[in-house]
Amino acid sequence: MQIGMVGLGRMGGNMARRLMRGGHEVVAYATDPAAVKQISSEGATGVSTLDDLVARLAQPRTAWVMVPAGEATEQVVMELAKRMSRGDVIIDGGNSFYKDDVRRKKMVEPQGIHYIDAGTSGGVWGLERGYCLMIGGPRDVVERLDAIFKTLAPGMGSIARTPGREKLAGTAEQGYLYCGPSGAGHFVKMVHNGIEYGLMQSYAEGLDIFKNAASKDLEPDLRYDLDLADITEVWRRGSVISSWLLDLTAQALAENPTLSNFEGVVADSGEGRWTVMQAVEEGVPADVLSASLYTRFRSRQEHTFAERVLSAMRHKFGGHVEPPAGG
Amino acid sequence: MQIGMVGLGRMGGNMARRLMRGGHEVVAYATDPAAVKQISSEGATGVSTLDDLVARLAQPRTAWVMVPAGEATEQVVMELAKRMSRGDVIIDGGNSFYKDDVRRKKMVEPQGIHYIDAGTSGGVWGLERGYCLMIGGPRDVVERLDAIFKTLAPGMGSIARTPGREKLAGTAEQGYLYCGPSGAGHFVKMVHNGIEYGLMQSYAEGLDIFKNAASKDLEPDLRYDLDLADITEVWRRGSVISSWLLDLTAQALAENPTLSNFEGVVADSGEGRWTVMQAVEEGVPADVLSASLYTRFRSRQEHTFAERVLSAMRHKFGGHVEPPAGG
Amino acid sequence: MQIGMVGLGRMGGNMARRLMRGGHEVVAYATDPAAVKQISSEGATGVSTLDDLVARLAQPRTAWVMVPAGEATEQVVMELAKRMSRGDVIIDGGNSFYKDDVRRKKMVEPQGIHYIDAGTSGGVWGLERGYCLMIGGPRDVVERLDAIFKTLAPGMGSIARTPGREKLAGTAEQGYLYCGPSGAGHFVKMVHNGIEYGLMQSYAEGLDIFKNAASKDLEPDLRYDLDLADITEVWRRGSVISSWLLDLTAQALAENPTLSNFEGVVADSGEGRWTVMQAVEEGVPADVLSASLYTRFRSRQEHTFAERVLSAMRHKFGGHVEPPAGG
Amino acid sequence: MQIGMVGLGRMGGNMARRLMRGGHEVVAYATDPAAVKQISSEGATGVSTLDDLVARLAQPRTAWVMVPAGEATEQVVMELAKRMSRGDVIIDGGNSFYKDDVRRKKMVEPQGIHYIDAGTSGGVWGLERGYCLMIGGPRDVVERLDAIFKTLAPGMGSIARTPGREKLAGTAEQGYLYCGPSGAGHFVKMVHNGIEYGLMQSYAEGLDIFKNAASKDLEPDLRYDLDLADITEVWRRGSVISSWLLDLTAQALAENPTLSNFEGVVADSGEGRWTVMQAVEEGVPADVLSASLYTRFRSRQEHTFAERVLSAMRHKFGGHVEPPAGG
Repeated sequence: MQIGMVGLGRMGGNMARRLMRGGHEVVAYATDPAAVKQISSEGATGVSTLDDLVARLAQPRTAWVMVPAGEATEQVVMELAKRMSRGDVIIDGGNSFYKDDVRRKKMVEPQGIHYIDAGTSGGVWGLERGYCLMIGGPRDVVERLDAIFKTLAPGMGSIARTPGREKLAGTAEQGYLYCGPSGAGHFVKMVHNGIEYGLMQSYAEGLDIFKNAASKDLEPDLRYDLDLADITEVWRRGSVISSWLLDLTAQALAENPTLSNFEGVVADSGEGRWTVMQAVEEGVPADVLSASLYTRFRSRQEHTFAERVLSAMRHKFGGHVEPPAGG
Repeated sequence: MQIGMVGLGRMGGNMARRLMRGGHEVVAYATDPAAVKQISSEGATGVSTLDDLVARLAQPRTAWVMVPAGEATEQVVMELAKRMSRGDVIIDGGNSFYKDDVRRKKMVEPQGIHYIDAGTSGGVWGLERGYCLMIGGPRDVVERLDAIFKTLAPGMGSIARTPGREKLAGTAEQGYLYCGPSGAGHFVKMVHNGIEYGLMQSYAEGLDIFKNAASKDLEPDLRYDLDLADITEVWRRGSVISSWLLDLTAQALAENPTLSNFEGVVADSGEGRWTVMQAVEEGVPADVLSASLYTRFRSRQEHTFAERVLSAMRHKFGGHVEPPAGG
Repeated sequence: MQIGMVGLGRMGGNMARRLMRGGHEVVAYATDPAAVKQISSEGATGVSTLDDLVARLAQPRTAWVMVPAGEATEQVVMELAKRMSRGDVIIDGGNSFYKDDVRRKKMVEPQGIHYIDAGTSGGVWGLERGYCLMIGGPRDVVERLDAIFKTLAPGMGSIARTPGREKLAGTAEQGYLYCGPSGAGHFVKMVHNGIEYGLMQSYAEGLDIFKNAASKDLEPDLRYDLDLADITEVWRRGSVISSWLLDLTAQALAENPTLSNFEGVVADSGEGRWTVMQAVEEGVPADVLSASLYTRFRSRQEHTFAERVLSAMRHKFGGHVEPPAGG
Repeated sequence: MQIGMVGLGRMGGNMARRLMRGGHEVVAYATDPAAVKQISSEGATGVSTLDDLVARLAQPRTAWVMVPAGEATEQVVMELAKRMSRGDVIIDGGNSFYKDDVRRKKMVEPQGIHYIDAGTSGGVWGLERGYCLMIGGPRDVVERLDAIFKTLAPGMGSIARTPGREKLAGTAEQGYLYCGPSGAGHFVKMVHNGIEYGLMQSYAEGLDIFKNAASKDLEPDLRYDLDLADITEVWRRGSVISSWLLDLTAQALAENPTLSNFEGVVADSGEGRWTVMQAVEEGVPADVLSASLYTRFRSRQEHTFAERVLSAMRHKFGGHVEPPAGG
């Protein structure tokens, strides 16, 4: 199939490549001319304006938007909609908030333009490993574009079939899934990332306990100087907690057992926050997902104001003068 | 009554004073001769050795131990026990672990010495306000020493009687309480401090939300530049969250609205940790008490190893390079 | 001053009473004719329609809206605005979301109507104790209505002045406070309630640890059968954790030491949820406030789906068959 | 090699089988004669007393103890030690507390008996998949028994080598690891299980958010009726959160999409509790691991006493009468 790709960053560029390898025709646009030039040299039709992009696509057109969530995506979607016609499809493949999808879908619907939200997981490994796709929008339009999603997705690969799956239809075991109406794709991706935070924090806390197990505050007989690279490696085989995130952790520790190349200032993206807000809206207790998010908030500050409040109280009721940092 | 006081620090010294003001005779010992001299000048019988202390007390003797919990207390109790006789009483007024009380009681019991654990709250305000006492040990011995506890305790003061209390007997509304057998006093004090952590953290988080309400990341219409000294003050009157800790917070903020005199490195003492361990032993979900403790752990480190692990994972799956601190 | 009161429930009725006792003239409206009749018998001018209410008030009018937050408040504000004129004031005294205040203020502003948001704490005790008021909106309008707020507020009462307060101006120590522009009042009240959840949960967890301290799973020497009514009572005097919430807890336990009259299904109102969402928006770690909210979510379900997921996993990897409830 | 296996339950029986398949000679004992008979029919030398077990093993003997942690393990280790001689080895393969290992090692050491602690992960899948082994004790003894551990472990299998591993020596990528001196094996296994709780809870909370996404409390446009079996399946391929626990969850959901076959009463074993206690001892913030544990505590109660305390407070300050359960 023919598809327009808007945005050729780390994600968009590789998705274009994977699509071309799968035999699709890609018309590619980005604000960075170098990125357009590069992808053109790999076989795409590079264009330098959205006008061109739309002109080069045969109707009904399909444009995959892969730019930063928020204002950038909003603007591209609106600019595309201006140039497109009834029956055309805009796919937002970024990390948009699902409520924005529902809003945007309502904005382009009167023109007869279809809006699809496609949550995408896979990171920098997607070109090789394939992209896990969670898709929302009108089912018939999604089905019409099946060949696109199938190519981007990992397929079954070497991963064993889930027992019981043989009785169930659908594309899930190919690594892409129609999740439901507008917003459903990004909703599922949002929670996916919320879970990701929780998984990451679980490993991180465990390894922190190991790291401090050699502390001189502990009894000499009960101190351990553990090899974290080896431990994460051994867990990769046969343990209950094996996972892809563990694979990556084992790799990072094999390269640098103290992780001294990382400072520990941890960013968070929208999805983690939205997941917590969604839990609150639904009345679902989400202790672990919230705590995982808060840890990241905390990591980006030297001290919170809350901590000063604690010190102030302690001083007032107990005359405590807090020890210096590191004490 | 006559009582020996071992330890004349911030707590012990003022307790000796309050006892003397209440008409009791105090024999006082501390390792610091200046502290002994000072309290002697205020009417106590200062002594320079434990031998002297024991010699000066008439049988059955009562010695109140007010030294740091852990080894210091252990040592003093053992040294006193060596010098004391059947029927004498050792009161541990410090912040001992309740399991240590039970162990120590068993150690001195064969000699006929009584061991009492007295959890004490009140901090630097106790001299004036009185000490809230939570007492464990043999009930008859505790009752025999009622005059001592009554003097140290705040009494009813100006605090209104709890409706329904008139039907209940006991000393609780005088500010001191026999809690149960050995360890019960420190057990109650331990959980008291665990609760204290939770209360402090609750206020601290709320004030932190206020502090960040003026952030430029928020929509201009929804930013607030709030006066925390005024807010904590207004809550002191008529609000559901009025408390003594709030009084102290309002005072600290009245003195310095940004709390710039505090860094935010927050110590924790044994009780907070033991409370969490106790909850785990009992199978009681203690989310808030635990989180309050962990916040303090975190406040004493520049970065946790856990945070580095998060950064390492993010780098591996997404090629993310974390922003610098403060970003 | 003259004021219209819309809503005569538990809060609105008593506020009308307190205003009348303070010498103000109250025109009162509620959908329940019995409530109107009752307050009329106490001196208010009862009316049966909003038209009447507005007609009975002299310009510039002031109407205090004390109806449930959300749709009910929205509707009353809009209906009042339709009937009011330039210079009139609508005070939303309920538990509205502060973003709704900002929105409503913008809606009535073009008509020259002033909108004030007044967060109110004090519960059923307010009539006697006074209402702690947190006020947002145009400062000059708030100041014009000072007499109203002063009457509703508790005043200094018997609560000691905060050291350092003497140097600071303002009404905070009278129990009412101008917090800032539109929404600021409800913003402060919102976080107030978030803190309230945290304080409540802190006491609750501590008492739960006491309750389970007699468990047969613990070693016999380390079990305690504690008197919670006495413990909460003793803490009221001289302890660091004394508070009004503790006073109420001591009272509830004095009446019924097992709290068997309560099931433990705990509602939550908007403020607790909004506080957590605000923390997430601001990037403030709010572990304790969130955990307090989640505990309430959990209390209203027999089992979460999350728990079933845990059981399913345990069954799959370990062949575990979970014990029956209560096991 | 020759090895004695004590305990032929779900774990011990299959370990004996895997050892025999690997060419080792197994002398097997269990309190259940049927289990002994069964394993004998598969090639083991069944014995009916510990005396027999020890008699049948050639010196230096090796006995693998695979009985429930706690008293049962303690007793078997002590009984074996009585019957064994200098140079013999006792391996505790159960889920013992690492501090018990250190204590037991000191008890048998004077006799010249070696004590090894081997944490084992793999559950009911171990026979086929191999057991991930985390081993503590004297290094030379562990190395002497390498053939045993190698056989039980999964080996590299089809799992790709970690980039960077080629430069590192050791057995970790074979699925077994010498972790350090006595207790180190169970220490690593303990934290492994703590992490496991966190991972499980992360998925569980995310799926709970999905489950409640169709709630009628949400706006109709923002409700989703999601297929959890499909979602967990799609995540298995190419997503960042793929893991073995996810594989099992996908399987459980494929079999029963509502998990109605599980009630949601979730047991916890010692390791989760010990991990939290260890974090507290070390001063490591372990928010997620703790919250995961507390969720399980909560799942086993109809209501906590804490929840009653909340209801009692709400009643006292606000006159709130809590809604019935499920409301």
